[in-house]
Amino acid sequence: MVNYAVILAGGVGSRFWPFSRELEPKQFMKIIGQESLLQATVKRLKGLVDPQNTYIITNKIYFYEVMAQVAKFRIPERNIILEPSGKNTAPAIGLCARLISQKDKEAVLLVLPSDHYIKNVGNFIATLKKAITCAKDNFLVTLGIKPVGPSTGYGYIKAGRKVGGYLRVEKFLEKPDLSRAKKYFKDRSFYWNSGMFIWKASVFLEEVKKYLPGLYADLQKINSVEDIAAVWPQIEPISVDYGIMERSGRIALLPADFYWTDLGSWEALSEIFPKDKRGNIANGDTMDLDSQGICVFAKGNRLVSTIGIKNAIIADTPDALLVCDRDRTQDVKKLVDLMKTQGRKERLVHLTEKRPWGSYTVLREGAGFKVKLIEITPHKRLSLQRHKFRAEHWVVVSGTARTISGNKVSLVHSNQSVYVSKGKKHRLENPTNKPLRIVEVQTGSYLGEDDIERFADDFKR
Amino acid sequence: MVNYAVILAGGVGSRFWPFSRELEPKQFMKIIGQESLLQATVKRLKGLVDPQNTYIITNKIYFYEVMAQVAKFRIPERNIILEPSGKNTAPAIGLCARLISQKDKEAVLLVLPSDHYIKNVGNFIATLKKAITCAKDNFLVTLGIKPVGPSTGYGYIKAGRKVGGYLRVEKFLEKPDLSRAKKYFKDRSFYWNSGMFIWKASVFLEEVKKYLPGLYADLQKINSVEDIAAVWPQIEPISVDYGIMERSGRIALLPADFYWTDLGSWEALSEIFPKDKRGNIANGDTMDLDSQGICVFAKGNRLVSTIGIKNAIIADTPDALLVCDRDRTQDVKKLVDLMKTQGRKERLVHLTEKRPWGSYTVLREGAGFKVKLIEITPHKRLSLQRHKFRAEHWVVVSGTARTISGNKVSLVHSNQSVYVSKGKKHRLENPTNKPLRIVEVQTGSYLGEDDIERFADDFKR
Repeated sequence: MVNYAVILAGGVGSRFWPFSRELEPKQFMKIIGQESLLQATVKRLKGLVDPQNTYIITNKIYFYEVMAQVAKFRIPERNIILEPSGKNTAPAIGLCARLISQKDKEAVLLVLPSDHYIKNVGNFIATLKKAITCAKDNFLVTLGIKPVGPSTGYGYIKAGRKVGGYLRVEKFLEKPDLSRAKKYFKDRSFYWNSGMFIWKASVFLEEVKKYLPGLYADLQKINSVEDIAAVWPQIEPISVDYGIMERSGRIALLPADFYWTDLGSWEALSEIFPKDKRGNIANGDTMDLDSQGICVFAKGNRLVSTIGIKNAIIADTPDALLVCDRDRTQDVKKLVDLMKTQGRKERLVHLTEKRPWGSYTVLREGAGFKVKLIEITPHKRLSLQRHKFRAEHWVVVSGTARTISGNKVSLVHSNQSVYVSKGKKHRLENPTNKPLRIVEVQTGSYLGEDDIERFADDFKR
Repeated sequence: MVNYAVILAGGVGSRFWPFSRELEPKQFMKIIGQESLLQATVKRLKGLVDPQNTYIITNKIYFYEVMAQVAKFRIPERNIILEPSGKNTAPAIGLCARLISQKDKEAVLLVLPSDHYIKNVGNFIATLKKAITCAKDNFLVTLGIKPVGPSTGYGYIKAGRKVGGYLRVEKFLEKPDLSRAKKYFKDRSFYWNSGMFIWKASVFLEEVKKYLPGLYADLQKINSVEDIAAVWPQIEPISVDYGIMERSGRIALLPADFYWTDLGSWEALSEIFPKDKRGNIANGDTMDLDSQGICVFAKGNRLVSTIGIKNAIIADTPDALLVCDRDRTQDVKKLVDLMKTQGRKERLVHLTEKRPWGSYTVLREGAGFKVKLIEITPHKRLSLQRHKFRAEHWVVVSGTARTISGNKVSLVHSNQSVYVSKGKKHRLENPTNKPLRIVEVQTGSYLGEDDIERFADDFKR
């Protein structure tokens, strides 16, 4: 029997705003170290799951980001499964189980969220190996985390008697209030629900058939990724916890023996960073006098200074700052919801906006002009395009560009410039192996991103 | 007898960092409304002092800033007196008294700091008029502010018996600790020392002769501004409070009947802004959930959001943020001192740096390039200059420039660009009545501001 990873990477969290944004959620962020949470999730499985057997299910708007992030792990593009829309975890896992079992009836799936943080990778792998053994005995295995405090941020599982190397499950419990959480924490039979599952694709689909027959019928219509679009809209959203885990009689709980957090809030994040003797975390360019218990994450390209502040999270980015009491980090979501009602773009994207070909940052916008720094990934190019209302001045500041302006094709080196007048067809390309950076000065009466007419595009936009 | 204003504008405060910087101190800032504190100080005197008789004494590094700020009041350039270095208030006021009394033996001086905030201008003028009457009777008049609380941030004056329309002075007292401040506040004979003085130049100089004979002798050597440079270095720094006011027997205190603050800290500033029902001040682009007693000043071109924060000052600028407990605002100075030991430029200047010809803002610096937005005041020009290590691409984004690049002189309109190669002499000028904005993209191996060779300069740099 072969192991497959099913990595869930479609989540749209808002709890790490302003570091995460709706279009750039937590799983794609480098929270700690040089890799994103998604990359760390893939990397942890090295040796246990072949890249050929690693599947990532995500929303189609995240496709290019996922591609860019997992390229180095040699995961085939066909293994990135795109949900046309979010339907929660049961349909997502069901879809992967269906697609994988079409090829391998005996597949064992390791179902893993892409946005958790895990230390002690050796123990993690050892736990998974035990879980795989248990899954081969036709159990739906869930990893339970021994609580290290009375958290109100996690769902709990009440374990039952021990059978072989695992525990039976008595009950799944929603996120509790503090007094309940304290009770659960005292009682040693409660575990945090980690959302990590190990099971045979066939066993999982049997349970779907039993408890979610509508979903099962829909999944049966899917024989390849081409069939997803037609079936997906009618599928009812439901979580795997609610739809399967709380109902099935085949659940086994395996206690996890490693440090884990789902990074569900800024407060959770603060647990994993080193602190000074007054309990402060300082990340980035910071200065402090006499603060206590503050967590400063300075990613705004500027100095963050503090004097006498207590028990606060300060998260700085180039276009938005959050200063939040540490006991209120669960309310960041509320703030983001409020931004939604106000139509604020700081909720959606960062100042540096990612594109399939690289990224751009608006350095300044003023009356009649906009300045952008454009970074183009090696061997990528923008669409062949035209603007009605603006002209563009390009200055190459590093690397070499291949440019089209009207009929003229040029190789443009660092310290050279190109002018594209209003209404002229043009294209920017990085034909080299090295990064290309261009400063673009736009001038015109209207400078919105929607003033674009595309004639050819590598990304089918 | 004619009224003269002597406005003290040489102060280098650090208490409003990051809004004020060493090279852009408080008096030049627009704290509230559309005018700087200096401009408001000049404007308040309208009708009482002729612009021809308004003198401003400042440090020479602030000359162009003062010129730019007071141009609209038609104060003659010769009335801006430049101290070669800061010597505290007694020499500064003495210098003005000396220079003015050379022309007008009977001059009455209104000596006013340029960085205070005053409401009720009508009452202010009425008080000054009373003070002028009193000064004509050869008193050194000081305006005393009726305390509105036990402030530890002000010096106090203990008033004596009433004589005519004014009070005699028993004693000047340094900034007290809180218990003393409470005593002073209860006792109705104590006033805050406002630092606003009204006296005849001749009477003041008599007192200088009596109590600071060394200073007097030095001042005697000054017959015009040309003599300042030779005399200034040997002058001992001393405050007018310590040197004259605490010693002279000719002091009269006039209680002031208007709202006044010296804006000595962020906390003082917070007094003058309107608050919401939870006691919060929100200035700029802000969002809040449930904070109490916070003062947010968002001038960083970004969203400042807060959740559940209590009793804090949040002051945001493009290159530095301060989050400070409101009871600790006196320690901002300490932070700035710490920055000094670390050689941080955020202490000295803003991201937008002022120049005699306008200003520039670094929009982005990266390996081998720098992008600036340059704004040139009508009819001003930069020096004729040359760089060893960098080339410059200019794109005019509004207005019209007159450019020199090598031997070529051009008029460059909006949406046109100019390239200046490394080592070529060049100059940028705004020959029009309208603002000129240029985006400059520099490329080169070294991009420091000190890579400049000047061949001609309107500002003698």
